[in-house]
Parts: sequence; C-alpha cells; structure tokens
Amino acid sequence: MAALLRSCGAGSAKAFAIPRISSRALASVKFVPPLRFQSRPRSFCVKATSSEEEAAKAAAAVADTGAPTIFDKIIAKEIPSTIVYEDEKVLAFRDISPQAPVHVLVIPKLRDGLTHLGKAEEKHSEILGWLLYAAKVVAEKEGILDGFRVVINSGPTACQSVYHLHLHVLGGRQMKWPPG
Amino acid sequence: MAALLRSCGAGSAKAFAIPRISSRALASVKFVPPLRFQSRPRSFCVKATSSEEEAAKAAAAVADTGAPTIFDKIIAKEIPSTIVYEDEKVLAFRDISPQAPVHVLVIPKLRDGLTHLGKAEEKHSEILGWLLYAAKVVAEKEGILDGFRVVINSGPTACQSVYHLHLHVLGGRQMKWPPG
Repeated sequence: MAALLRSCGAGSAKAFAIPRISSRALASVKFVPPLRFQSRPRSFCVKATSSEEEAAKAAAAVADTGAPTIFDKIIAKEIPSTIVYEDEKVLAFRDISPQAPVHVLVIPKLRDGLTHLGKAEEKHSEILGWLLYAAKVVAEKEGILDGFRVVINSGPTACQSVYHLHLHVLGGRQMKWPPG
Repeated sequence: MAALLRSCGAGSAKAFAIPRISSRALASVKFVPPLRFQSRPRSFCVKATSSEEEAAKAAAAVADTGAPTIFDKIIAKEIPSTIVYEDEKVLAFRDISPQAPVHVLVIPKLRDGLTHLGKAEEKHSEILGWLLYAAKVVAEKEGILDGFRVVINSGPTACQSVYHLHLHVLGGRQMKWPPG
C-alpha cells in the first residue's frame, strides 16, 4: 500500500509509473499523503483532502509510531528530489508544493526521535542549531538572504504533515502577517 | 526621541505615562515602532503604518547598524514584559500583539551579531540550537506541545520588525497554510 500511496505524489511525477490497480482496491485506500507531496492530479489520490490542515490531521495518526516517512526515501535517494544543500548532518531540498518562489525543506538525516519539534530534548540542541544554520546557508544559496522566513510546524494544528522534523525556508516574495 | 518612540507601544500600556510633547514635536517623528509593540492607540503614534509589512520595511533601515533595540530594554527589565521562560542564555516573553492564543517570543540574551538569521555564522549554531530547544520548552509550559508553530522572520520581506534575532512560538488555534 505504501508504494501506491507514494505514487500519489511524492517526488516528481516523472519518477513514477502509474501502478495498475483496480478501482475496488483504490476505493479501500484510506491514507492521505501530505498535499505538498502530491504532484499528480488530486483525482488520482483516493480521498484526497481539501486542505493541508486535513492532511496534517491524517498524518498525525501515525506521528508517534516512529514509522518511516517519505523523507527516509528522499535521504536514501530512492525518491528523487531537487537537492539545494547537503552535508553530513542535514539535507535541504525543494518542496514540491512551494508556497513561495523559494520554498526549501531542511531536514536532519538522522531523525533520532525528532518526529516533531515537540519531541526535542536537550541532547538535540546541537542538530537543531545546525538545522537553523543550514537554513541560512540555503537562503544564501537561493539568493534570498535579504528576506526569508523559517517555519517549523509541530503537530496537526500547526499543519505538520510529515513526522520527520523539517524546517521550511520560504522567500522570494513579500511574506504576510500573521504567519498562517 | 527614542524614549518618545518607545512610548508609542513597547511593553504594556500601563507602564508608561504619556509624555507632554507639542504637536509640532510629534509631527517631526518619522520612526515607526513595530506594530506588535504598539499597545497604545495607533493614533498616538505619528505616521503609524497600516501593516506589519510596512513597519518591517521601516525597521530595516537600521537593521545593520547594530543599534540597540527594544529587546535590550526587555532583557534588562527596564521595560516590563510577561516572561514565560528564562535561563542564562535566552529569554521568552509574550508578544503584546499576539497572533494566536499563545504567542511568545524567544530571544538570545546576547545578540552577538545576530540582528537576523541571515547573519548566522557557524559559531552561532550552539545558541541557535538552544533557542529552538527553548521554543519547545515554552510550548510545553504553555500547554501547546501537541501543536505549535515556530516562525523566524529574517529581513523586511519576511516582516522582521526588531533587529535582534527572535523566534515566534504560536499555538492554541488551528494554524493556516501557507504560513503568511
């Protein structure tokens, strides 16, 4: 089922062949992948939700299971992504549903329990600092150092849709206030 | 002039006596304090802008001067604030123009060149990590650990209005997407 679900949108559309699945099998699929990882037409995804908020609520159901996420496959390069920056500790790649001309996700390569920021312990402060520094490096590489916003969603009411801590780096347009 | 400007809104309204200033002197004031630090009626503030975006543009004019900001006075307890968390390195206090039921700012006590995240160097990663960890501690203390958003604005197009690095911790309501 996981392969089917991911085919709904993770990575670029070119990377996937549409699997041959009966309409009955499709109808049984309940899981909704995060909207930002849906690059195929929504109609292909069964029960696609109408908003990122609903997708986040669906994702929260497996938040604390420690289950692998789509980011594991992106880190392993099993799913293609447009990498902007990479070092030993972090990977930065473009969000495929960008909310600004520049929209990059920065993630730790080792999740180490950080499904979301709410799980952060003192021991994580080193990687947390490196992630924020990497966000600045990304902004520099993307030419938005004069204006960018970093956003971290923790939990369903914040619209977190993948339970592997990630920072959104957005820029290239005037950002609004309040921030969502 | 700085004292006059700050009297337009920084800290709680109770903390200030309205200074006796002639209308001519008021008319000469050009600086616009960030909207989130304006707790007095806007009409008292000369040339009050219509949005946080415009206030951020005004603030950017002094972004790289290294000039003291209102946060220096908050850290020094010369201006009252509602402190939520404090340790040797960071201070967390409520935003006086909250954009959510919980809206707390987390700042480093020592700015160390971090007027904004765009100024971050590798040496800053330790404090950056501690700030993010502190954001989680704040969320815990505020009872929003199940859902909160952290936002860092860097530069005018991101709506940064005080040039002392600060993290916004927001929660207690459904956050929207995109994040501003």
